[in-house]
Amino acid sequence: MFRTGARNLITDVAGLKVGNADDAKLKSGVTVVLCEEPAVAAVQVLGGAPGTRETDLLEPHNTVEAVNAVVLSGGSAFGLDAASGVQAALREKGVGFAVRDQLIPIVPAAILFDLINGGDKDWGRYPPYRELGHAAAEAAALDFAIGTAGAGTGATTAGLKGGLGSASTLLDNGVTIGALAAVNPVGSVTVGRSRHFWAAPFEIGDEFGGLGLPSPLPPDANDIILKIRDAAAGANTTIAVIATDAVLTKAAAKRLAISAHDGFARATWPSHTPMDGDLVFALATGRSGIVPSPDEAIDLYAAAGTTMARAVARGVHAATPAPDDLLPVWSGRG
Amino acid sequence: MFRTGARNLITDVAGLKVGNADDAKLKSGVTVVLCEEPAVAAVQVLGGAPGTRETDLLEPHNTVEAVNAVVLSGGSAFGLDAASGVQAALREKGVGFAVRDQLIPIVPAAILFDLINGGDKDWGRYPPYRELGHAAAEAAALDFAIGTAGAGTGATTAGLKGGLGSASTLLDNGVTIGALAAVNPVGSVTVGRSRHFWAAPFEIGDEFGGLGLPSPLPPDANDIILKIRDAAAGANTTIAVIATDAVLTKAAAKRLAISAHDGFARATWPSHTPMDGDLVFALATGRSGIVPSPDEAIDLYAAAGTTMARAVARGVHAATPAPDDLLPVWSGRG
Repeated sequence: MFRTGARNLITDVAGLKVGNADDAKLKSGVTVVLCEEPAVAAVQVLGGAPGTRETDLLEPHNTVEAVNAVVLSGGSAFGLDAASGVQAALREKGVGFAVRDQLIPIVPAAILFDLINGGDKDWGRYPPYRELGHAAAEAAALDFAIGTAGAGTGATTAGLKGGLGSASTLLDNGVTIGALAAVNPVGSVTVGRSRHFWAAPFEIGDEFGGLGLPSPLPPDANDIILKIRDAAAGANTTIAVIATDAVLTKAAAKRLAISAHDGFARATWPSHTPMDGDLVFALATGRSGIVPSPDEAIDLYAAAGTTMARAVARGVHAATPAPDDLLPVWSGRG
Repeated sequence: MFRTGARNLITDVAGLKVGNADDAKLKSGVTVVLCEEPAVAAVQVLGGAPGTRETDLLEPHNTVEAVNAVVLSGGSAFGLDAASGVQAALREKGVGFAVRDQLIPIVPAAILFDLINGGDKDWGRYPPYRELGHAAAEAAALDFAIGTAGAGTGATTAGLKGGLGSASTLLDNGVTIGALAAVNPVGSVTVGRSRHFWAAPFEIGDEFGGLGLPSPLPPDANDIILKIRDAAAGANTTIAVIATDAVLTKAAAKRLAISAHDGFARATWPSHTPMDGDLVFALATGRSGIVPSPDEAIDLYAAAGTTMARAVARGVHAATPAPDDLLPVWSGRG
């Protein structure tokens, strides 16, 4: 009953564009979701080690209802500068929340930790994320690269290189839902050390290899496989955006973000650990004009979980090798 | 690497006893977890329709650190009276938070909706949950029934009768973790309409049938199967307790509750919907004397998810038929 959108990307949600900027030597980068018009937004943080900017304003009881962009960045806390670059790019275009003659672009941001991933982090006084953020905003389009790109450039998982993933779902009532994830968890996205993704039950077609679930389960299926134990990489957190063209309140958008976390739980094990800053931003562009009924809302929230799980798997599935990588890519696993 | 405790019940966690009280005609009941000494406690609510009592005091920044008991009850908002009965039973035993010469038993509680399940709800002016709560406290012991018992007596899921489930895990560092769940979600605990539980990757032995995962996946694996669509039953919410004998702060107990929600996501689909009041209480008795290292804490939190997923499956697996049931039991599914 689930179909993907035309691109199988978050940009299948009308009103959104995505831009990547990255630096192969740095092994890091930035991904920005630009909203053509301000989008209702929320966030749910469930990991124990988040790094964020402008998340308090997203609570349903706070004043600002809508945002101009959301930023996912590598660079740990240094990567929060990426939002400054996006703000600058938006201000140059005359976009922002108007207070008298001032325009303030509202740009929530979250980071993942990729400082110990084989990249060159000797950037001098100031980190390069502000400029990467500006470049990502300038690059925003309907098509964008997944895998080793943008905020997923330096991402790793337990035993496999991570990456930037995206997926979309068309619901029967005409609503589209899309997910974007920079996949960098402490845990594993595969069942044990097999090639089978945990997200397999929700795969559409062969969007991440089409291998299904392993049967019988491999003996290491419930080993706790952690990158901090298996590999030199110390670099955690999955950060993500779930978006829809449905008309949602800010509170409903928060529930969308909560539901999308079930996609993390389905796609990665363990997830939401004290060493992951796992969080999901939610965006509702309202472009479909459809206000989901209570019954339709359950489908929407269920699809938030499955679409996010698929985005996580697609991010790892699409990763490509690069010099000085600490971990192999999925496509090379025997 | 995972082993169950001696009983494969939450009471494998030293310092806890569990009591059930139920009424077959009412098709509802109460389950109480009694703490021999006050246990550090927390809660995480992620469902959209919770019913609770004494949950605000559980926030890490609030004063009371520990509780005397936790109550899970049927009866929707009427079932919150069960905590009064448990308070009365504890006061009779001289148990409670001392303020001068007064003892106030601290008894957080949560309910599930089982008012439309074939039972007789014509109870007159006052509902019977206060007395059921008292009886459950009096019945508390190391051994207790799972399946159609206590708060799981009237529970249902999409397509199958629900129930009360429990499971435990012994970690390599000597810590025990246990889960207790009254399983009554709007969603399905099986892969499509098969007999295979979603929780299969984490099953220990054949504790819920030993069927593993289906391969290939059945064509209805990602149908959104909801009891509100498939059956006359309108009765949602999974409420649960995750407990450990590790020494945890209140904040760490909250993270334990968050992690246990991943067990809901793994065992049920969809979970955490707007029509579920899904929540997890966490209890840390400290009886092992072990303060988990940051690395050990990841195992503890990962096991919280798997132990909870197993408890959910075991609750449905153990359900038994009763007169006027609206749904079949798992053991009768072909």
